[in-house]
Amino acid sequence: MTKQRSPAKESFLQVPVCPIEVTTPQSTDDLLTRMERISFQGRNLAIARRIWERMIADDVLIFFGMAGALTAGGLRLAVADLMHKRAFDCLISTGANLYHDLHETRGRHHYLGSHKVNDVALQAENIDRVYDTYVDEDEFIDNDNWIADFVSELDPRPYTSRDFLHQLGGYLWKQTGTDGILTAAYRHNLPIFCPAIADSSLGMALSQARHINQNTGQIDVIGDVIESANLINQHPRTASVVLGGGTPKNFINQASVQAAFYDPSITGHQYAIQIVTDVPHFGGASGSTLDEAQSWGKLSADAGQVTVHADATLAFPLLTSALFDSAANALKNRSSPKFSTDGQSLVMDGCHIPSVRFSTTNNRSP
Amino acid sequence: MTKQRSPAKESFLQVPVCPIEVTTPQSTDDLLTRMERISFQGRNLAIARRIWERMIADDVLIFFGMAGALTAGGLRLAVADLMHKRAFDCLISTGANLYHDLHETRGRHHYLGSHKVNDVALQAENIDRVYDTYVDEDEFIDNDNWIADFVSELDPRPYTSRDFLHQLGGYLWKQTGTDGILTAAYRHNLPIFCPAIADSSLGMALSQARHINQNTGQIDVIGDVIESANLINQHPRTASVVLGGGTPKNFINQASVQAAFYDPSITGHQYAIQIVTDVPHFGGASGSTLDEAQSWGKLSADAGQVTVHADATLAFPLLTSALFDSAANALKNRSSPKFSTDGQSLVMDGCHIPSVRFSTTNNRSP
Amino acid sequence: MTKQRSPAKESFLQVPVCPIEVTTPQSTDDLLTRMERISFQGRNLAIARRIWERMIADDVLIFFGMAGALTAGGLRLAVADLMHKRAFDCLISTGANLYHDLHETRGRHHYLGSHKVNDVALQAENIDRVYDTYVDEDEFIDNDNWIADFVSELDPRPYTSRDFLHQLGGYLWKQTGTDGILTAAYRHNLPIFCPAIADSSLGMALSQARHINQNTGQIDVIGDVIESANLINQHPRTASVVLGGGTPKNFINQASVQAAFYDPSITGHQYAIQIVTDVPHFGGASGSTLDEAQSWGKLSADAGQVTVHADATLAFPLLTSALFDSAANALKNRSSPKFSTDGQSLVMDGCHIPSVRFSTTNNRSP
Amino acid sequence: MTKQRSPAKESFLQVPVCPIEVTTPQSTDDLLTRMERISFQGRNLAIARRIWERMIADDVLIFFGMAGALTAGGLRLAVADLMHKRAFDCLISTGANLYHDLHETRGRHHYLGSHKVNDVALQAENIDRVYDTYVDEDEFIDNDNWIADFVSELDPRPYTSRDFLHQLGGYLWKQTGTDGILTAAYRHNLPIFCPAIADSSLGMALSQARHINQNTGQIDVIGDVIESANLINQHPRTASVVLGGGTPKNFINQASVQAAFYDPSITGHQYAIQIVTDVPHFGGASGSTLDEAQSWGKLSADAGQVTVHADATLAFPLLTSALFDSAANALKNRSSPKFSTDGQSLVMDGCHIPSVRFSTTNNRSP
Repeated sequence: MTKQRSPAKESFLQVPVCPIEVTTPQSTDDLLTRMERISFQGRNLAIARRIWERMIADDVLIFFGMAGALTAGGLRLAVADLMHKRAFDCLISTGANLYHDLHETRGRHHYLGSHKVNDVALQAENIDRVYDTYVDEDEFIDNDNWIADFVSELDPRPYTSRDFLHQLGGYLWKQTGTDGILTAAYRHNLPIFCPAIADSSLGMALSQARHINQNTGQIDVIGDVIESANLINQHPRTASVVLGGGTPKNFINQASVQAAFYDPSITGHQYAIQIVTDVPHFGGASGSTLDEAQSWGKLSADAGQVTVHADATLAFPLLTSALFDSAANALKNRSSPKFSTDGQSLVMDGCHIPSVRFSTTNNRSP
Repeated sequence: MTKQRSPAKESFLQVPVCPIEVTTPQSTDDLLTRMERISFQGRNLAIARRIWERMIADDVLIFFGMAGALTAGGLRLAVADLMHKRAFDCLISTGANLYHDLHETRGRHHYLGSHKVNDVALQAENIDRVYDTYVDEDEFIDNDNWIADFVSELDPRPYTSRDFLHQLGGYLWKQTGTDGILTAAYRHNLPIFCPAIADSSLGMALSQARHINQNTGQIDVIGDVIESANLINQHPRTASVVLGGGTPKNFINQASVQAAFYDPSITGHQYAIQIVTDVPHFGGASGSTLDEAQSWGKLSADAGQVTVHADATLAFPLLTSALFDSAANALKNRSSPKFSTDGQSLVMDGCHIPSVRFSTTNNRSP
Repeated sequence: MTKQRSPAKESFLQVPVCPIEVTTPQSTDDLLTRMERISFQGRNLAIARRIWERMIADDVLIFFGMAGALTAGGLRLAVADLMHKRAFDCLISTGANLYHDLHETRGRHHYLGSHKVNDVALQAENIDRVYDTYVDEDEFIDNDNWIADFVSELDPRPYTSRDFLHQLGGYLWKQTGTDGILTAAYRHNLPIFCPAIADSSLGMALSQARHINQNTGQIDVIGDVIESANLINQHPRTASVVLGGGTPKNFINQASVQAAFYDPSITGHQYAIQIVTDVPHFGGASGSTLDEAQSWGKLSADAGQVTVHADATLAFPLLTSALFDSAANALKNRSSPKFSTDGQSLVMDGCHIPSVRFSTTNNRSP
Repeated sequence: MTKQRSPAKESFLQVPVCPIEVTTPQSTDDLLTRMERISFQGRNLAIARRIWERMIADDVLIFFGMAGALTAGGLRLAVADLMHKRAFDCLISTGANLYHDLHETRGRHHYLGSHKVNDVALQAENIDRVYDTYVDEDEFIDNDNWIADFVSELDPRPYTSRDFLHQLGGYLWKQTGTDGILTAAYRHNLPIFCPAIADSSLGMALSQARHINQNTGQIDVIGDVIESANLINQHPRTASVVLGGGTPKNFINQASVQAAFYDPSITGHQYAIQIVTDVPHFGGASGSTLDEAQSWGKLSADAGQVTVHADATLAFPLLTSALFDSAANALKNRSSPKFSTDGQSLVMDGCHIPSVRFSTTNNRSP
């Protein structure tokens, strides 16, 4: 029959693909475990779960990024649950996901729709479409006014997006007592950064607040750059989990590069998971590989990393369902950074995180 | 607050998105059920399960197509299981998926690998790569010889791919007694068509058989066209489930169009599910929408249909796991067509399915 | 032969595809003209040229958005040339494209590379990779310092990104006298908005300026929201040309929606072209269709619009080359808005465009 | 300023990106030449032209593959022109492209349409849609009958697809005297292989011929496997240019692997160009990289190769227009293989190419 394999050949052919077996009933944990032995993106999703487990077991500050219409898409409470269970520490989001979260936390809804609808007919009814999902534009206008009223009463000073979103989450929690991304972050004091906040309905509402009260609606996005880098200076071992590309993906990586600018001992994330639909070969950052990130020093040269090429609405429910099962104990025992706030300042593990100057190696808190 | 909605607006805004909740432990059935109320491709996968349930409950002949390296990717036994449970009736496959199935049924493996390997190093070791999966080329040569020896002993006549694959599955079953796609189809007498068989290692092995014995290795692919259309003529209510695009997707649709050529009462599939990664806007058939299929009469104007834009290795395990759970009873009670063979002929529900002439309305068996 | 076509059928079958003929030598204008009669994305690119011609001939304010690494990709001078010829009026860009432009305007380069390189080896040499293109990280650090030094001398007040980029372009022009995006915009007083400036090397340099001088590095992105909407309030007939998705695509559309918030007579862009690689079915804004934009009122219900699914580095050179040829006279005769600046303020057609309050229908300048 | 670069760094940073300059008027040759110095897929297209020039200057047998609806898409006469100019030697196509070619050569048309049409309305008018292109189904039925009548008069023997398409092209040329793919191939005696002919309207017409005359409509696709491998055995230096993936891409590579099965001195194509929209990470052959092809020995380890990720309707007109200009003399001087036919046999450079047994090293014609 076939001849004996050479040692070099053996080194390549070690672990056979094991065709997946579907049992009934089957837990998501069992299914995803079996998917570790198949191929392509199914395997990559299974690997993503194991890398996330390693993040949880290790002493790393975990960043979580979300871009794309994931709140409208139905992932809002799963993200909130990740915060409740402290499966990550710091959220970077597009403005839309936070605005849509506020919309639902205020008791309104997105609606199941179709991408094969007449959009002019929707426009006539003031209905906005997000692919196969609808939302009532009149309710959005009500949100805008609600936010603008709140903002126009804030102090007449610039707020980092992190600071502003903490204030907004707190007000929302007091008004609604309802779970969601903004309210969960507020209750756990977890920071949310929104570097492109101007490019969203949150930015529109902030601009409307300024129309009401000229000294309000000031967002200090450069302060966000400093704060996020200082988090890493303070806790140099980091990890990233990113859904979609866009500004969240880049901002998480930039924070690491910016921290290294003042502290060369910082070498990039120790672990990285991305679930993306963009591809690398058009050169955009959203689709860039994690290898490419290594050239920039965004990712440690020996990082545990995986890219899952998939729609998050398909991949993320299975991933979190299996993770919450297999990592239940590890999450309970996780030694995660402790966050609080002090006036305008974020505090991590007892240290103030400044937004006006960078911490450096020499002044890193012990 | 917000004003009363008009009836027209109400008609669009009926079922709210319900943010997915992850419980622990969670069954795949429960997870996919909850995904019906989220959006985008997650929702589409959840809808696919329900459409498949409707196929099972209805009296339809279910075609199943598979393109892409799904056997190498680890889905081989799940497909075999679909045959054991009769979740479909007739398979259309690329040659590669069947050849890789034979490879594993003969006791060999595909291996977990990486897409970031030096391919010239692999070539030096006679290892073939399929993205992140490796296979031993020497074992493929052994398969080729094994198939060629078998084929060179067959009758010196053309075989439809369906007939040939039935013979091959039978020989494989006798030699190995091992479960797989070819052997499962053989044991249940389910037809497999491979319209592009020449474009695969099966075609290569057949050509090598002819090199040995000049009168063998004849495949009558035009007979496949006639047989597949006649299946639909005999059982005009049909459905399709397609993984990937390629020749399987088109052949399943073509069978319906060809049947309608001689029998205008045939109006296309009643149900259609496709799980594809190709997109429509480049004009290729692989990525074409199911709506476009309606213009050709491939799909009934009122068909229940869904497209899931996803890698099958990610979507299919979850889909089948949930389906086998929720449809367990329906599958046991399914009134599926009965297949057998008679010499070179396929027999369905007691009627011979010719490969040399088309059945027409007038001669459809009662 | 074939029977007479019904009038309904005739209405669908009017203009035959005309197989493209390649002549030698052939001008880009001729080639793209012939592509109007082929199909798929080739036709769409040809249509895009004609829609852009209509924008130029009409009295519309043309927004141009660019996302993705288009400067690194070699499109920087083509974009500058569009400004010199006034093929658009207002640029919205990611920070990276502007930073990379500054890098080249300062006399440095991006380099032809390969996506199949060892990224850890690049990291060891301080080389950053953008798919198949390299850049010297040490030169980026020099840019950072150069920008930070400039910024740390600016007035201690918030600048809109538009105002800041005008200052930066002016300084760059004075220092280098070299053509590029920032310097072309400065010389023509054309506004550039960078809504996600914090998420880029520009944002990093701004943060480093603040590290030097605590009162600098303030960017008022909410002022950008107001200014951009007020541009549309002042000139309600608008058009958009967008390369890639991301924040530029959304910001251009948001400006229209925000303007309509205070002036319901504003109905969205009259023309829209987008050249994108993202797809709609994952729900993200980057890949969303122009039809979907109509549901939001971002695009007029009767807008002339086309989406080209292509990499901009492939599509844009051919598009601009043909456009500059066929629209040469129209560009010379175009009645474009006149821009100037007055202190911190942008002035269009003699009217100040405020950044602290929205203009409304009643106070629109005559 | 910036420090001196190390030699290792210098080795990476050699050729700067040169921002594209658009001149007016501009030839396609000039534009594509300038695109060699930009990035991403624009650069790859420019490289493809240069690799094709190298194929033409070298002594290689050039295979050309086309998948996707490229005839309907308007590329039919450009492909025919490539044959007239002998920019390739052997075509591998899907059946649809050849059938649509016959449709137009017979004087009918495809029509400019829209992908946003009501497909049920099209079905009611017997109009088939290919994304944004329409065709009259009644005319297709007329084609089917025309082909079936021709086939039913052929000899009652199996024809390789190559032999059959030569007969069909000859009949079409005699009937119409019109240029197209099939007729150009016939007039130059260039072989066309259609390995998946059963999966197309050609296959449907062949099946209808058998319905008329039971001994006709026999296609020997396994003979195609042998013939195509024997071409390479006879002319071992080869190259491939592939538009789209599917069966043509695989068949061209398979021919090389199959030839090497009997002649280990054959080492894969010396040059390879592919223009594809599929991506590698889902594991399908259509999207697989040319590196992966090297692991299989489909491509020589040192091959000149490039993948262009683009829609062919966008990339191919520019590519051929520039190629015909810059390679005009080289094409005239090309030492291309000489083809003729002798009964059922293909003859290349005076040697018969058998379809029933493989040539081997020992019996390669001198």
